[in-house]
Amino acid sequence: MKKLKFGMVGGGNGAFIGNVHRRGAQMDNLARLVAGCFTRNPEKNLETAAAWDVDDLSRVYANYQEMAEKESAREDCIDFVTIVTPTDTHFAIAKCFLEHGINVVCDKPICLASEEGETLKAIAEEKGLQFGVTYTYASYAAIRQAREMIRNGMIGEIINVIAEYPQDWLIVSTVAKESDQAMWRLDPKRAGSTACCSDIGTHLEALISRMTGLHPEEVLARFTHYKGSPLDHDIQVLLRLTGGVPGMMWASQIATGSDCGVKIRVYGDKGSIEWKHTSPMELVYAPLNEPVRTVTANREYNDPACLELCRLPAGHPEGFYEAFGNVYHAYCAHLIAKRDGLDAGTFSYPTIDDGLRGVYFTEACLASDQEGNVWKKLKKG
Amino acid sequence: MKKLKFGMVGGGNGAFIGNVHRRGAQMDNLARLVAGCFTRNPEKNLETAAAWDVDDLSRVYANYQEMAEKESAREDCIDFVTIVTPTDTHFAIAKCFLEHGINVVCDKPICLASEEGETLKAIAEEKGLQFGVTYTYASYAAIRQAREMIRNGMIGEIINVIAEYPQDWLIVSTVAKESDQAMWRLDPKRAGSTACCSDIGTHLEALISRMTGLHPEEVLARFTHYKGSPLDHDIQVLLRLTGGVPGMMWASQIATGSDCGVKIRVYGDKGSIEWKHTSPMELVYAPLNEPVRTVTANREYNDPACLELCRLPAGHPEGFYEAFGNVYHAYCAHLIAKRDGLDAGTFSYPTIDDGLRGVYFTEACLASDQEGNVWKKLKKG
Amino acid sequence: MKKLKFGMVGGGNGAFIGNVHRRGAQMDNLARLVAGCFTRNPEKNLETAAAWDVDDLSRVYANYQEMAEKESAREDCIDFVTIVTPTDTHFAIAKCFLEHGINVVCDKPICLASEEGETLKAIAEEKGLQFGVTYTYASYAAIRQAREMIRNGMIGEIINVIAEYPQDWLIVSTVAKESDQAMWRLDPKRAGSTACCSDIGTHLEALISRMTGLHPEEVLARFTHYKGSPLDHDIQVLLRLTGGVPGMMWASQIATGSDCGVKIRVYGDKGSIEWKHTSPMELVYAPLNEPVRTVTANREYNDPACLELCRLPAGHPEGFYEAFGNVYHAYCAHLIAKRDGLDAGTFSYPTIDDGLRGVYFTEACLASDQEGNVWKKLKKG
Amino acid sequence: MKKLKFGMVGGGNGAFIGNVHRRGAQMDNLARLVAGCFTRNPEKNLETAAAWDVDDLSRVYANYQEMAEKESAREDCIDFVTIVTPTDTHFAIAKCFLEHGINVVCDKPICLASEEGETLKAIAEEKGLQFGVTYTYASYAAIRQAREMIRNGMIGEIINVIAEYPQDWLIVSTVAKESDQAMWRLDPKRAGSTACCSDIGTHLEALISRMTGLHPEEVLARFTHYKGSPLDHDIQVLLRLTGGVPGMMWASQIATGSDCGVKIRVYGDKGSIEWKHTSPMELVYAPLNEPVRTVTANREYNDPACLELCRLPAGHPEGFYEAFGNVYHAYCAHLIAKRDGLDAGTFSYPTIDDGLRGVYFTEACLASDQEGNVWKKLKKG
Repeated sequence: MKKLKFGMVGGGNGAFIGNVHRRGAQMDNLARLVAGCFTRNPEKNLETAAAWDVDDLSRVYANYQEMAEKESAREDCIDFVTIVTPTDTHFAIAKCFLEHGINVVCDKPICLASEEGETLKAIAEEKGLQFGVTYTYASYAAIRQAREMIRNGMIGEIINVIAEYPQDWLIVSTVAKESDQAMWRLDPKRAGSTACCSDIGTHLEALISRMTGLHPEEVLARFTHYKGSPLDHDIQVLLRLTGGVPGMMWASQIATGSDCGVKIRVYGDKGSIEWKHTSPMELVYAPLNEPVRTVTANREYNDPACLELCRLPAGHPEGFYEAFGNVYHAYCAHLIAKRDGLDAGTFSYPTIDDGLRGVYFTEACLASDQEGNVWKKLKKG
Repeated sequence: MKKLKFGMVGGGNGAFIGNVHRRGAQMDNLARLVAGCFTRNPEKNLETAAAWDVDDLSRVYANYQEMAEKESAREDCIDFVTIVTPTDTHFAIAKCFLEHGINVVCDKPICLASEEGETLKAIAEEKGLQFGVTYTYASYAAIRQAREMIRNGMIGEIINVIAEYPQDWLIVSTVAKESDQAMWRLDPKRAGSTACCSDIGTHLEALISRMTGLHPEEVLARFTHYKGSPLDHDIQVLLRLTGGVPGMMWASQIATGSDCGVKIRVYGDKGSIEWKHTSPMELVYAPLNEPVRTVTANREYNDPACLELCRLPAGHPEGFYEAFGNVYHAYCAHLIAKRDGLDAGTFSYPTIDDGLRGVYFTEACLASDQEGNVWKKLKKG
Repeated sequence: MKKLKFGMVGGGNGAFIGNVHRRGAQMDNLARLVAGCFTRNPEKNLETAAAWDVDDLSRVYANYQEMAEKESAREDCIDFVTIVTPTDTHFAIAKCFLEHGINVVCDKPICLASEEGETLKAIAEEKGLQFGVTYTYASYAAIRQAREMIRNGMIGEIINVIAEYPQDWLIVSTVAKESDQAMWRLDPKRAGSTACCSDIGTHLEALISRMTGLHPEEVLARFTHYKGSPLDHDIQVLLRLTGGVPGMMWASQIATGSDCGVKIRVYGDKGSIEWKHTSPMELVYAPLNEPVRTVTANREYNDPACLELCRLPAGHPEGFYEAFGNVYHAYCAHLIAKRDGLDAGTFSYPTIDDGLRGVYFTEACLASDQEGNVWKKLKKG
Repeated sequence: MKKLKFGMVGGGNGAFIGNVHRRGAQMDNLARLVAGCFTRNPEKNLETAAAWDVDDLSRVYANYQEMAEKESAREDCIDFVTIVTPTDTHFAIAKCFLEHGINVVCDKPICLASEEGETLKAIAEEKGLQFGVTYTYASYAAIRQAREMIRNGMIGEIINVIAEYPQDWLIVSTVAKESDQAMWRLDPKRAGSTACCSDIGTHLEALISRMTGLHPEEVLARFTHYKGSPLDHDIQVLLRLTGGVPGMMWASQIATGSDCGVKIRVYGDKGSIEWKHTSPMELVYAPLNEPVRTVTANREYNDPACLELCRLPAGHPEGFYEAFGNVYHAYCAHLIAKRDGLDAGTFSYPTIDDGLRGVYFTEACLASDQEGNVWKKLKKG
């Protein structure tokens, strides 16, 4: 099978997330990095290219505009570009590549304002391009297992969703270290209109939506601004999901002692399912009035949709890199199917719709908080 | 040391909670059951008395009024009465005993309306009587340890409190068994104005208040009414605690797969503390940017206030009965100190103030939900 | 139902275990403490009697011989005596009461040498008396559930048993505190021929035997003597169980950081069951190639034999006291059935056979270690 | 920095372990796969090369002899070869590459008989070549943290080591599926002289040795042969470690319900450390008589030797692939330092000495079992 070729914008200078994307995209031998504009520093740009086996140095570009132009002019043009720059630059870069006819994978959140996201969606649809978004958590194999179990009715009708994402890096940084890297997040001039909500609240929104098939339609949010910062560092949100199902969300960057403690519990009238990021290979499944089950990803009893995301024999921990790889696997499989004229089938990865819904969610939460913790509808569910 | 004598109203007919109170009150040899009106069924009344070693059958009474009258007339009158009847009868019974000069221990919630609670408080204060309330969770030894650690500044200033109490008995009963015992809880004519909030929401309120020293001053509540029942079976509450500290609470009786899953997390700017009812002897203590500690109750490194609640050598599980015993231990020690004219010192058990605050809390939550999920102040914090 | 009457030898002077026995025996209202010889100190003897509601002071005795004589002469003689004195006195006391025709409950190990145990067994059988032994761990409700699941074939044929009991009190005492109470355990003149093996190794043996129905027939033991003490404080034992099933045991009193960490895993060819003392209400049940189950004691899906040992609604932690209560519940039910001429049915509690097997086990382990870690048969399985 | 070039023998045909090695070796951009003999099937050989970006097809070889010869003749010869074929072929292949002057990384166990391993060691030393062995478990970041804590005296003097590795694939395969792939492991003609011991017992031996610095000097082993197979599928081993420290090991491939449940507990006189493969980022550290700590890898408080093995910010799960990457990282860093004439410093990865000790261990265990579970010295610790 002929591999896809891809390029990357951003990711140089030792940012860990660039390497996560690179490893994720190449994990299952469906794509190969052949071009990039990794950083504005020319020397580091070349160093990154060398480290990442980009052999043809003519495909290492000084800026993204040049990259989009020159790549789109080549016969062996990249099949997609991956954008891993800071959020405020996503829109312009994604727009540029889409306009040059190149498929896009973008980190989340995909942009700052929903109008930008709507523009990107319109261009992608017009051009028939695929726009993937790297929401990681919904791409763990165990979440896929959960989604299939829910679809198959194993917890009955959903009656409640409780999601949380406590982490503590901000309070560690500010209290323990007074680091500037953290302090700018307390400065609205530098950080934009929300911090915690757009950064990790959107992760929870995407996880809820992709795991349950239900989306937030209305929110009532309370933001906490640590040490009087104008930005939010802890959000507590009541949710009205599709069909009026209630939900609750808590995300915090000042929850001392928490690593990336994502946890989601979905309650139905015939059972419940729980997943925690600290043991990412496991689901806790409680059928009504029966012993609780621990369902482990990469066991033979898994749903096929889960098994296809498992790369190791039972009992070998897979982690964050592999979840990233799962996004890229589905995205690449989709592009390959299109390229080869195959029946495209179903390829499950977060798209522009997921990315856009995250922006709608953030905007609604912000408005709810600013208007005194009142219910606000999402612009579009 | 001369033991206290106590009586009990309710608890017959095999209700488990009666035996919990009896065992709790007698656990540490500070009191002995000598009188009671356990049930209106005369035969079962005597059977219960016999089973519980009430030897003097003249102190087995047909109704609580007779019991209050006759006991208060005896020279060897009971030192206190324990009330374990259904909630709607608490007020009349407690009032009667208080008016006859007898100290009271009452199960929670102490009454249906705050005016009733205020009346009880006024009588108790006027008569100089002690009114104890059996909020169990705050009386686990580990919670005492947590309270002392918080008081000693080990988590710094509190910045967030997250509490939850999922259980599933209601959905097990209705869905799995269609039991009538459960169904009446869906009928407002029989169950009163709130179900989940007054039953277990108040447990969380008491736990937060006694563990942290912070009380809810304002609430924003959303009640979920399962299967269209007029009563609440799931509550999600945003809290404004003393000094404006934010908090969040979730309690549910339809959380499939949950036992009495009480969990509380208190976040400070120097650390956090977590406790779960499913491992009641343990605290998880996370000092900022250091390894997380598991602090086990009944280890020598405990605070003395915790150690005095531990009855077994390290490593022997204590449970729900012992938590009940802890309430009674402090209550009895208080009565004994008063009786013996000793310096009363500090006796830590839930009092009428805690009981009353629980009623205020329920009333504010109900109003918040009915008025469209708006912030409501508690009548009195 | 008429309660049993019982007496106690030992348990005074604040020893925690006396109170555990008293609470256990009285927990379910089947028996009442009416006599005792709690300590040789006359004042404390009376104090203990008062605290424990022994109202008739003529039944508080100066020594056990007097107690056995006088009680056996009364028409309302105690139905059984509970022996909670140090091990080296068990034999003489038990023998005395048996010879006076009084049933016995004895703490473990029941005696120092198997000949003593055989004598006790012979007398009890000759007199038709019941001899109960308070092995606690096998009496947790969850272990009862496990036993029934194993009997019902839910793990298939047993192929392996792994048991452990790490605790750290000895190393805490000696290293951290240099306490004399601990140091004497390092002195063979004062402590007898084994320490860890007879103290907690026997607990594991009893747990294995009662849970699985398989008994150790041969052992290969290695004893570790901490700091050169002639006594064992850590034992590692290979087992040959009934029918040649392999097993492995580790018990240690120098396992830093361990509370009473009893854990047993029973592997069959169709599933496995695991239980840990640190979460005593739960079993982990793994059917072959299916999701692992957490089976919680006091859920409706339990086996009836488990449910009859649960005193609280689902989700309320029961602990060590209740496990003790379970031994006494079955023992008392047995005596009551005999007294009332009922069909005695099956009453599951550890008997003289269990107690004796524990002594055989200790003797075989000691011999194995002394002869260079060779296989030794138990005197009688 | 100029990358190393490496080749691979084996790993084609979809064997998962080949991809694990490839990803591990390339993870940190220190090496690039440029040559290989992945399988004897010419078509699949080329397919694998293409999938893994081996661009120069002249470096895809039909057999390992040709590969060793031709590569060693090139100016741009591979810097090392990775051997991922079945165990019985390791010796011949490794010997061939060493004799051609090429460094070797070999999967474990490195060979079948200790004489073979001694030969490999002699050649490697004579030629000044590096021989790495991919023992995974000792290469998790958390184990590195543990090793440093032990070296720094944080648990005092080691007094006991308890290690286990239960898994259930064999019983799943034979009982649930009667798969031939599993059945041949029960056939000594096809599987060699030991199964469980050489396959996973050696993993435990390596983990103990590298984590604690203590090695097994004597063993007493009992092998269990499932369903009468001449091969071992469960081993229970008493250990005498360096300096006479006692230890105990259990490894099983018929432990129903277990994934790769590696667990090691090291007890010292001032504390203990525990690690479990099911939560590979965490250590449980219990200082004597203090609260137990959970030490998480990739937190700032880690030892530098641990932090250099962490690739993600705190809270992002790393797993099996990354542990593999850690072996290769140290191995490649060593080769690069040699190549560049730098001070070689200390590079911590398993070497021929570790590999050889694993073979000695297996041989001693087998002899112990065959001679009736007696103590056997390792040929050379």
